[in-house]
Amino acid sequence: MTEERLAVRFADGRSYPIVLGSGLLDTDGLLDPFVGSQVLVVSNATVAGHYLDRVRRRLFADRAVDVVLVGDGERFKTLDTYASILDELIAKRHSRATTVVALGGGVVGDVAGFAAATYQRGVALVQIPTTLLAQVDSSVGGKTAVNHATGKNLIGAFYQPRAVIADVDVLATLPEREFRAGLAEVVKYGVIADARFFAWLERSMDALLRREPAPLITAVRRSCEIKADVVAGDEREQGLRAILNFGHTFGHAIEAETGYDAYLHGEAVAIGMAIAASLSARLGSMPEAEVERLHDLLRRAGLPVAPSGVDAHAVLTTMGMDKKALDGRIRLVLCDGLGSVSVTAETPTGMIVEAIREAALNA
Amino acid sequence: MTEERLAVRFADGRSYPIVLGSGLLDTDGLLDPFVGSQVLVVSNATVAGHYLDRVRRRLFADRAVDVVLVGDGERFKTLDTYASILDELIAKRHSRATTVVALGGGVVGDVAGFAAATYQRGVALVQIPTTLLAQVDSSVGGKTAVNHATGKNLIGAFYQPRAVIADVDVLATLPEREFRAGLAEVVKYGVIADARFFAWLERSMDALLRREPAPLITAVRRSCEIKADVVAGDEREQGLRAILNFGHTFGHAIEAETGYDAYLHGEAVAIGMAIAASLSARLGSMPEAEVERLHDLLRRAGLPVAPSGVDAHAVLTTMGMDKKALDGRIRLVLCDGLGSVSVTAETPTGMIVEAIREAALNA
Repeated sequence: MTEERLAVRFADGRSYPIVLGSGLLDTDGLLDPFVGSQVLVVSNATVAGHYLDRVRRRLFADRAVDVVLVGDGERFKTLDTYASILDELIAKRHSRATTVVALGGGVVGDVAGFAAATYQRGVALVQIPTTLLAQVDSSVGGKTAVNHATGKNLIGAFYQPRAVIADVDVLATLPEREFRAGLAEVVKYGVIADARFFAWLERSMDALLRREPAPLITAVRRSCEIKADVVAGDEREQGLRAILNFGHTFGHAIEAETGYDAYLHGEAVAIGMAIAASLSARLGSMPEAEVERLHDLLRRAGLPVAPSGVDAHAVLTTMGMDKKALDGRIRLVLCDGLGSVSVTAETPTGMIVEAIREAALNA
Repeated sequence: MTEERLAVRFADGRSYPIVLGSGLLDTDGLLDPFVGSQVLVVSNATVAGHYLDRVRRRLFADRAVDVVLVGDGERFKTLDTYASILDELIAKRHSRATTVVALGGGVVGDVAGFAAATYQRGVALVQIPTTLLAQVDSSVGGKTAVNHATGKNLIGAFYQPRAVIADVDVLATLPEREFRAGLAEVVKYGVIADARFFAWLERSMDALLRREPAPLITAVRRSCEIKADVVAGDEREQGLRAILNFGHTFGHAIEAETGYDAYLHGEAVAIGMAIAASLSARLGSMPEAEVERLHDLLRRAGLPVAPSGVDAHAVLTTMGMDKKALDGRIRLVLCDGLGSVSVTAETPTGMIVEAIREAALNA
């Protein structure tokens, strides 16, 4: 068992720990400092099948906790699922002193987090992310949300957890495709903020794909550190935080255009990063050789770098509707060379379309 | 036209203005500093019938604003109504830069506020409260919420507006009973924090009941000042803010026990304050003569001071389920003499039941 702690701090002095390591879910009493006498665990049937008994026995020492299982998959990230969690909190008479524990991937974390953010105007939240994507992305940033029929994450709140427990051992049961999709976000952190970390990923990709705990812990830690640095200065996504969206404006639009079922989120982000990098090279801000290194690393991670079956103009239109679009203009995060990105709303739409079209031709 | 501004400040430096006066809705450009290019006005048919055209013409200079009307009344303060506001924001493609303007009473303010708090994880909110209760209560504190089938305000968020516009002229169209219910909260501010203000209310009650603008402005201003002082030190209701619940623990339970249709919220609060004061006297902390002054002032305002048709034990049980109950214990705000209150969880339940029963006998 290894355990380290990373503090996520905010300008106003608030902070919470990310408890990171392996064997954490077998550590008696690990959660005690973070939960009160009432607990509602939110999970889904798949994750609960693997880990709920262990969490009950070790983390909660077999005391009574309420459990609500939500559907497994993005299509269950809805106001209805959110309402079902609130119904359970109310039915079991949870007070303001309760703690909501989200045990699962991004969907569980987002919807349980939104319920915690709004039950009685906010109760304590502990995140136990069980996917690589959730460990490196949702652990930091306090974003909670549900989808609307017409768009993802349109409804939600910024709400910080009391603690995050990221145990890389749970990644062992993750389906291969989902694990690889999570690597896309890890690669992103190298691109936007740390060329040395990017180079480390190039050296460590094989070990990561074998899911060795030590490099996984390094990858999760460095990703969380980078995200925490960015978020600390911009909790409510007014500015700097936009750099975290590298690859995402393209990615979200590609997900929407393919009906959210062709690509996992991380796969769409991989394609989005590949397109953003090519566009950056075309604009002269990123060396071609680095674009190749990014494309190569994504391919080694088993990720797509080109979109299939999308119309470039349709993607562009959808990008203009992305909630990060500012008054209709498309803000893009472009790469200035590995480890550095910048945000611009000045890219000619013709060049954006051209970059999507070129990528689609390579698919 | 008179206009004054009261700043509501928070410990971390944030603040927003309450623009207070008469003739405000006829002031061209008054909202300009607070709204962007996109606006969604949330109102109900009654209020919109009186004021929407004027607001459009004067405050928005006839430029296009989207409008959504919600049902009039507490039973429309639901997740469904909330979702209908989100649907409209999404259908009209409102960006993160939009402003939600709540034009109405507490229901409109609470549900529109919750929509603003959670649309794209938070967009700008301007409150234009059109009831006395909303002007003195919802203007300050940032509470937004909807009801659940089993309880009021169980779902919501703390979310501060960008500005509040409190125009006492709009109180002219308020039904008499609703106006009087609003006075209950005004009286509360005197009881909890300012004996001089309480005495001023005793002298000014007749003028207030005639709805004269000058005393109304004084009453709204002093109420908001007191609430702002309390909230500034306790934005998320961890401690001090509990004193604002004077009369409310009893009041909420009486509302619940009478199915929310016998009493308006302010009327239930008046009864709750009368009971809390009697209980305070019984415990030796409030002089009997002051209890009489409170009961007299509430009666002069046309408010009830005793509950009809409630069972004291049922009220007690409901009080234990109030969301402010801490781990099942009933926290009460009791009066230590006009202008001063304290919070206790030590009152024997037998005495609480007795106080309710005695009041019910006088009904």
